[in-house]
Amino acid sequence: MTESIDERIARVSFDANGLVAAIVQQHDTREVLMLAWMDAEALRRTLTSGRVTFWSRSRQEYWRKGDTSGHVQLVRGARLDCDGDAVLLLVEQVGAACHTGTRTCFDADDLDPVVAVP
Amino acid sequence: MTESIDERIARVSFDANGLVAAIVQQHDTREVLMLAWMDAEALRRTLTSGRVTFWSRSRQEYWRKGDTSGHVQLVRGARLDCDGDAVLLLVEQVGAACHTGTRTCFDADDLDPVVAVP
Repeated sequence: MTESIDERIARVSFDANGLVAAIVQQHDTREVLMLAWMDAEALRRTLTSGRVTFWSRSRQEYWRKGDTSGHVQLVRGARLDCDGDAVLLLVEQVGAACHTGTRTCFDADDLDPVVAVP
Repeated sequence: MTESIDERIARVSFDANGLVAAIVQQHDTREVLMLAWMDAEALRRTLTSGRVTFWSRSRQEYWRKGDTSGHVQLVRGARLDCDGDAVLLLVEQVGAACHTGTRTCFDADDLDPVVAVP
């Protein structure tokens, strides 16, 4: 790999707010843990430090996951999607991913869809 | 379950463009297949029909996955996240999820992160 970090980040299509959606998945169980947002700098920190950093839209600040909760996300992989506007992060999640204390942010609210039977 | 479809959709926090991010995951292998966008009507169709429908931001139209490609997504579950701004869809994916022909939209582009060793 000779591609620089700048070259990798340049492939991302950030939205009008300068953000890209980041899906976080536990690398071994493949649970989808959460979705959050990154600007170019948060992505750079994530790709270069081994720890996941987001941009908090509500607080308008960088947010390195686990700094206050201890529930850090250790980077195991990172993929960009086909049109460059979504990142999939594979992580080792320490403790609960959700601020509510559940393992994932998708544990509490079932939208109860009609289920297709092929 | 006595909660109406309107009550379920009312829990979603759509963004300034009226959209919510939808992560699509293969229900059994737990592969993350793609990320796309839904407005309230696309979510309603998805939750009530057994077939996944998105809102195409580039084409500005509804897009029922598989209508042109045959690569339909059959709904097996749907979850809303803790702050209501992301949906996780569990599906049975027929064929390739990605328009490029790969199984998922995250197969082609490795962002090559520094990997954390605990």
